[in-house]
Amino acid sequence: MNTLEHPAVKDGWFREVSNTMWPGQAMSLRVNQILHVEKSQYQDILVFESTDYGNVLVLDGVIQVTERDEFSYQEMITHLAMMSHENPRNVLVIGGGDGGVLREVVKHPGIEKVTLVDIDEQVINVSKKFLPSLAVGFQHPKVAVHIGDGFEFLKRNVNQFDVIITDSSDPEGPAESLFQDSYFQLVSNALTSNGVMTSQGECMWLHLPLISKVISSCKEVFPVASYAYTTIPTYPSGQIGFIVASKNKELNLAKPLRTWTAAEEAEKCRYYNSEVHEAAFVLPNFVLQALKSS
Amino acid sequence: MNTLEHPAVKDGWFREVSNTMWPGQAMSLRVNQILHVEKSQYQDILVFESTDYGNVLVLDGVIQVTERDEFSYQEMITHLAMMSHENPRNVLVIGGGDGGVLREVVKHPGIEKVTLVDIDEQVINVSKKFLPSLAVGFQHPKVAVHIGDGFEFLKRNVNQFDVIITDSSDPEGPAESLFQDSYFQLVSNALTSNGVMTSQGECMWLHLPLISKVISSCKEVFPVASYAYTTIPTYPSGQIGFIVASKNKELNLAKPLRTWTAAEEAEKCRYYNSEVHEAAFVLPNFVLQALKSS
Repeated sequence: MNTLEHPAVKDGWFREVSNTMWPGQAMSLRVNQILHVEKSQYQDILVFESTDYGNVLVLDGVIQVTERDEFSYQEMITHLAMMSHENPRNVLVIGGGDGGVLREVVKHPGIEKVTLVDIDEQVINVSKKFLPSLAVGFQHPKVAVHIGDGFEFLKRNVNQFDVIITDSSDPEGPAESLFQDSYFQLVSNALTSNGVMTSQGECMWLHLPLISKVISSCKEVFPVASYAYTTIPTYPSGQIGFIVASKNKELNLAKPLRTWTAAEEAEKCRYYNSEVHEAAFVLPNFVLQALKSS
Repeated sequence: MNTLEHPAVKDGWFREVSNTMWPGQAMSLRVNQILHVEKSQYQDILVFESTDYGNVLVLDGVIQVTERDEFSYQEMITHLAMMSHENPRNVLVIGGGDGGVLREVVKHPGIEKVTLVDIDEQVINVSKKFLPSLAVGFQHPKVAVHIGDGFEFLKRNVNQFDVIITDSSDPEGPAESLFQDSYFQLVSNALTSNGVMTSQGECMWLHLPLISKVISSCKEVFPVASYAYTTIPTYPSGQIGFIVASKNKELNLAKPLRTWTAAEEAEKCRYYNSEVHEAAFVLPNFVLQALKSS
């Protein structure tokens, strides 16, 4: 038996340490077995089977998804945007190589095309092998996959997409350009007239200066932009946020334009519902204070 | 220099492992120095200075408070109850030996008396020494402290308190009785006619069967009972919940009966505001589903 090793796994535990992004704290998950270790062209890829969180995908030492709690992130980043558009037909996903966002987008029956652009094909291949409940998103007939740089892809596509979802990793590494000011201008250009975007927006307990800066950048480009968050145990500090913005200046982002029935919500989603949509934009005082100037 | 040691601190990191309460996951905090180690009559007490979360109090291996994020828990467990009562004058805190809930209760100017009952005087002493920003609560002239068993204290007090806040540790250890069915009957008996209670209610991502059972118990005793939660990075999975219940059958727990002005909220609280109060009761589908029968 070939036993794999990875420097982040010691004594049967994976530990997520980052001295720059979340100094002094680290989430650990117990490992049953390491399933895959690889240096792709862009990043370090690790997949392990955990004792209690299912299979776990780790890029450059940072947990991207666990099978147990990924639904919170995938549903929220997708439906916060999709439910803020009257009739989203053409959707772009930047990043999201695990397929989870695709799985959520195609729950909307009006979808005509979903394009996924990820820079690292190996993430897609690894997810198809080890994260089938996410990679199922790739099997839908409306899905097209493009391997390449999301930033460059946007430059070539103007007034194309009703919704753009940027499901990126953190700004250290291959996703760095997806947090830059100029990125949001490109997203705006690529959106149709009432287009909506969500971007992975980091954690309010850890990254308020970055969040404030990104919201400011967005507000220079979009008439409405805001921050929402969801709970998710295996992201640092147990939450992750979203930058949500739209070209529709009449839109109240915190009120979904469309809603499913309660029965549809229960069938389609394990986390998202229309009340959760609204509550996701309600922020604690320390966050309101920090974002006041943005 | 006398260097303290504790089995949960290794290689400069504290790790919070529990094979029964949160198997397969562990939050770690980096330690600057261990400040206090003690076996009290009831539990193992550890205080350390962390690199990024201020001083940290740990009981029986479980993080109780860190100076950096404690405000979320203290404000929410206190004001969810206090703002659901028209005029809370006499308040009981069971547990809460760090003093943080007292600090929050006395922010309500109508308060005439706050009694704190904690079984372990050493927690109070240690907090006064190492957690002054919480233990400041003990200095207020309206505060009375009683060292003893909260369960027994309640038996001797009927129709006394407008609000009862149970700020307990987890059900493994000295707080076990504070999660029993009979406990909520005693709380109800000790409350005045429109009395309100909150109890530490564990995490929706980890303990749904326990939460469901406790809500059921509460609903047998109180006409209104519900679950709310707050985000807090250093509790397991990054969230903690509250059982909120009242003898006031007209009360909608998710709508505060009283509100502060925005300026008062900003001055008094770093987490709580009236919108956060409402949003705290909005639960994801998987939680709604699990609590449906309770």
